[in-house]
Amino acid sequence: MAQPERELLQALNPSAFDQVLLSLAFFALRQSSYRHGAFLGAAATAAKCAVYTTYVEQGGNLRMTGHLHHIEPKRVKAIVQEIEQGLQTGQGLQHAAFQEPTYLTELPQVWLGQYPWHRSQPRLTGDRLSEEQQTYLEAKLPPDLPTAQGISSAEFADLIAFLHQQAQENSPGDRPLPLSEALAEHIKRRLLHAETVMRLDNPWGMPYYILLSPTYGGPDSPTKAPHSLLEDAAHFLRLSHAWTKQQHNVMRIFESLNIAPADLSQAQTELHEFMRHWAGKYHQRGKPTMAIHMMFGPQDHSLS
Amino acid sequence: MAQPERELLQALNPSAFDQVLLSLAFFALRQSSYRHGAFLGAAATAAKCAVYTTYVEQGGNLRMTGHLHHIEPKRVKAIVQEIEQGLQTGQGLQHAAFQEPTYLTELPQVWLGQYPWHRSQPRLTGDRLSEEQQTYLEAKLPPDLPTAQGISSAEFADLIAFLHQQAQENSPGDRPLPLSEALAEHIKRRLLHAETVMRLDNPWGMPYYILLSPTYGGPDSPTKAPHSLLEDAAHFLRLSHAWTKQQHNVMRIFESLNIAPADLSQAQTELHEFMRHWAGKYHQRGKPTMAIHMMFGPQDHSLS
Repeated sequence: MAQPERELLQALNPSAFDQVLLSLAFFALRQSSYRHGAFLGAAATAAKCAVYTTYVEQGGNLRMTGHLHHIEPKRVKAIVQEIEQGLQTGQGLQHAAFQEPTYLTELPQVWLGQYPWHRSQPRLTGDRLSEEQQTYLEAKLPPDLPTAQGISSAEFADLIAFLHQQAQENSPGDRPLPLSEALAEHIKRRLLHAETVMRLDNPWGMPYYILLSPTYGGPDSPTKAPHSLLEDAAHFLRLSHAWTKQQHNVMRIFESLNIAPADLSQAQTELHEFMRHWAGKYHQRGKPTMAIHMMFGPQDHSLS
Repeated sequence: MAQPERELLQALNPSAFDQVLLSLAFFALRQSSYRHGAFLGAAATAAKCAVYTTYVEQGGNLRMTGHLHHIEPKRVKAIVQEIEQGLQTGQGLQHAAFQEPTYLTELPQVWLGQYPWHRSQPRLTGDRLSEEQQTYLEAKLPPDLPTAQGISSAEFADLIAFLHQQAQENSPGDRPLPLSEALAEHIKRRLLHAETVMRLDNPWGMPYYILLSPTYGGPDSPTKAPHSLLEDAAHFLRLSHAWTKQQHNVMRIFESLNIAPADLSQAQTELHEFMRHWAGKYHQRGKPTMAIHMMFGPQDHSLS
């Protein structure tokens, strides 16, 4: 968690519910690149799912569902229709928050395909650049770039428009999102912010744009870790729900204890060794797959 | 998780992100009694916090923050002002989703205080009821009620209005929420749905309302368990974040293994016994408090 996130959390002292919600918001908007509106849309969809399940549980009573959630019955009706349509067509609902937007993640591949670069060519093309100017500009490029040409502002804008168009075609269930100037600027800034693309200023004309990485966010992107964190947390929550239903093959262990800092390393090692020994002892290939999720750390809230 | 929730999840096959978001929505709207609007408000607040941290990280650049999240700069400005005001006054922000609404949780205590009942009195008062009618109606009441009188529809409506007014006064940071007819009906239905209150039909006039439990949702309310589940999950997420920062006193253990169903019980017992033994060995009163959160269960998604 970044410094400003940690400081805000400490100042707000949120409830467990708000903490989890904040983790999701930080993940979606900061570690990943969802638009603000996409996050709110995902939250609204989740709420619609909750309303829909109440509707099913109440035997299809629109008025009662509306009373329980404080929504107008005609809005409940619209929600029910939307969810049922999504379930029938198998699309639309889950698109909102499934992954990083494809207009970001697919950009490097499309760029590499449309503007490939070979060692024998200049990296920067353009009629107006002299050989000397080319050499000057290329000296400013970082080493180990992907095999793609640098492109002009106009080509970069076209690439963004193309990728946005593709993303729209592949999510027919969502409301169409036109490519406004602000959205194009958002996409461009996200690519620069993630250091997937850099802008190369050109004293003799319009700037060039350079592909820095063959994947969005680059190989060391912080977007990888939080994804698996959320998968851990989602599975942890699923198991927790099953545990409250007293499902016999689900076990929860919670321990709270006081440990001297000098003993911590030994306690960690012993725990780790036992778990490996235990897993090795009971593992039998071909039998049902079970998982253990465990976190061991300070009880208090002053975590980074 | 209830049957319709489970079925919907299986049909949607949501991403880890959506799973956690859906858990929150089910918790807020179904296991608890947040209004639909309160949940959306909490999600919007979480998004505002994320936008605010980007603003801080970007050195107070409104335009850049707007670009990164695809929001107009003037909206970023309003968000920043709202969060800063919330931080200064120490209120407002965290109210949205802190707990079950007090107009629900405090109703039993206020009812018990305003309409106490003593054994010597009739449970149902009202000028128009004959003694025979009273006996007839009281025979319909369940045993072991709290020591509160049954009240009329009008008295019940007044009680709801009073509690709503109190809740408004205690959350000065929130936008005021007027007590519409729909909101009053929502509150009433929630109280009936949670079996905190029952409606007693009266063949000779308006119905009576009866307090069934001295706490909202009653002592066996399902609202208790999900709360601690979320606390587990929030702490698990906090530790996971710290772990990705390689904080030395945080350890993650993940094991995936195949276990024969016949061995499961023994594997669970051995794991449990080791953990108790290990915790006993390293526990030293007065030293820093550490916690272990562990879930052990099926890897697959077909959990109840």
